[in-house]
Formats: sequence, structure tokens, C-alpha cells
Amino acid sequence: MPRSGEEARRRLQQAALELYRERGFDQTTTAEIAARAGVTERTFFRHFPDKREVLFGNEAALRDELIESVADVPAGAEPLEILLHAFRKAGRVLVDNRPFSEPRMAVIAATPALRERELAKAASMTEALAEALRRRGVAARLAGLAAHTGWAAFHHAILAWLEDSSRTLDEHLTGAFADLRALAAKAGG
Amino acid sequence: MPRSGEEARRRLQQAALELYRERGFDQTTTAEIAARAGVTERTFFRHFPDKREVLFGNEAALRDELIESVADVPAGAEPLEILLHAFRKAGRVLVDNRPFSEPRMAVIAATPALRERELAKAASMTEALAEALRRRGVAARLAGLAAHTGWAAFHHAILAWLEDSSRTLDEHLTGAFADLRALAAKAGG
Repeated sequence: MPRSGEEARRRLQQAALELYRERGFDQTTTAEIAARAGVTERTFFRHFPDKREVLFGNEAALRDELIESVADVPAGAEPLEILLHAFRKAGRVLVDNRPFSEPRMAVIAATPALRERELAKAASMTEALAEALRRRGVAARLAGLAAHTGWAAFHHAILAWLEDSSRTLDEHLTGAFADLRALAAKAGG
Repeated sequence: MPRSGEEARRRLQQAALELYRERGFDQTTTAEIAARAGVTERTFFRHFPDKREVLFGNEAALRDELIESVADVPAGAEPLEILLHAFRKAGRVLVDNRPFSEPRMAVIAATPALRERELAKAASMTEALAEALRRRGVAARLAGLAAHTGWAAFHHAILAWLEDSSRTLDEHLTGAFADLRALAAKAGG
């Protein structure tokens, strides 16, 4: 049995990911996830409300980190510079956990119920980022546009990094923001 | 009783919207929507699978129109120019139906179950737009970034238009794409 709550949580996430890959999300029960992790089903429900959330358990920490990073950037920086800084910091977690985060993203992309949850998460993250930009004085709607646009570039960079790991996520982030500049420069109007 | 299927459909959408505003989405039944529209509940289910979809019934038509507009733009145009053209055309439907589309958006924003459906719709629209750009030869991932970014600007323009109707949606679209250019020009990297 895992000794600490943190360890049980990590093992439950790993077990869920393995089972979703092996037999699919719909065919997996919380009892099976608990058994594979070597804990009781009761322990599962102490950590997660349901079998969707087991793959999204680090969301609050990510949101807090993004918001903190946005607040930390020196005054005078432009909205997308601020977001790029926040994404660089948040990206380190993905990089450190690549053996988990890469198959996690593949399972989510292939499972409608998880994909829906992922979309809700992206919406809540962009709203939190927009709000953090507003607290720095960025105009309300412009902050929303910047957050959505920045999030799209972050997502684009992650996909590129998963396909081509000869470059670091940081390099792909630089590339994604350069693509964004090039696209927008020719945006018409 | 409404005479045609098209008329029944429109009345069901109007009745649903009214009831969701008056008493909330969760407190409204399909039977009540049908009664307010002057049709049977059976007619409701001939048009819509459930009470969420009644507010999203025009999605396939919008998607087809966007994809067709993307294909129609002369060769040589840049990705965001192409999308701006498509959004201008699609926006006419919103403008023509403002008495319906404005409260519809307010109800969606205030109702988690509808908001989730809206996010799924936005994801499916951006994927369709990205695919339409790819068919014009835009590189796969760049098409995804362009579609997400363009959709964010479209959404931004709609919000601005709802708040400030002294300018047309077309003018707000021009403004949103200009905001996007200004943001991206200072995107860091």
C-alpha cells in the first residue's frame, strides 16, 4: 500500500491512465483503477470525485501557477509577452512529467467525455488568465482576446513538441508565438 | 398550430429561450417548451434530441456556410484574411436574428450545461475551419493555430457588438482583427 496520500494520488492517476489506454475509458471502473493502484475504492473517492477527474487533478495547481506567473512579470510588459512567460513556467511541469503527460493527452483526444472536460478546463484557464491580465490593467475585452490567443499558441506549441521532441518545449513556444506574429501581421482588416 | 416544420422549429427555439430566461434551464421541461410553442412534445422530439440542442439547432448550417466561405476566397489570400471573410458572411445571420441571438448568448453564458455545449460547438467549428484551411494548402498545425486565433477574434467581436451596437458587427470584426494584429506584433518570442 502506498504510504502517503500524495503517493496514492499519483498511483491512482497512473493506474487510470494505463487502464484507459488498455481497455478504454468507458470500459474502466473506479474499482479497477483502485485495485491496480493498490488502494481501496474508498481511497479513490477521497482523492477524486469520479473517473474523469482523475486525469485532471492538477488543474488548481496549474491555474495558481499561471496566475502567479502573470502577476510576477515586471510592469510595462505586453499582454502576450506576459502570457509567454507564464506558459514557459507552466510548461516545465509537462516536460518533467512527459511519460505521464504525453499518453494522457492522447487518451483525452480519443475520449469524448474527457475531451469535453478538457475544453471546460481550457475555458476556465483562459478566463483565469484574462482576469489576471485585467488585474494588471489590461482592458477587459482585450485581456480576453489575449488570453484566448495565447492559449491557442500554448496548445499549438505542446502539439508540436509532442510530435517533434528534437526541440525543447521552450523552443516550440518561441516558434508558436512567432507563427502567431506572422499570421496576425497578415490578418487583413 | 404552426403550419410548417420550419415554423414549428422556430417557435420551439423561441419558446425554449423564453422559458430558460423566465425560470432557468434546469427548471424547464420539454413538455413546457412544446406547450408554449403550441405543438406536441412529440413534435419537439422530431426537431431536437433534447432541451440543450434546441438552442444549438443551427450549427450544421453555420458550419457548412463557414466552410463554403473559406473555399470561396481567391487563391493567394492569407489564413486570417480568409477567416475574416468567412466570419463576415456568417455574422450576417447573427445580425438578422439579433432579437433571438442576443438573449440566447446571455442564457448560454449563465447556464453551465449550455456553456459546455457551446464550448464543444466552438471546438468543432474551429476544427472544421482548420480542415478547410488545410484543404487550401495551409500547413496542418498552422491551420489549427489560425483557426483558434481567428475564432477568438470572432468571439471578441461578437461580445463587443453586443455591448456597443453603435457600430456594426462588421466594424467590430475589423476592430477585433486590428486588436489581434496589435497584440501579436508585441508577442515577444
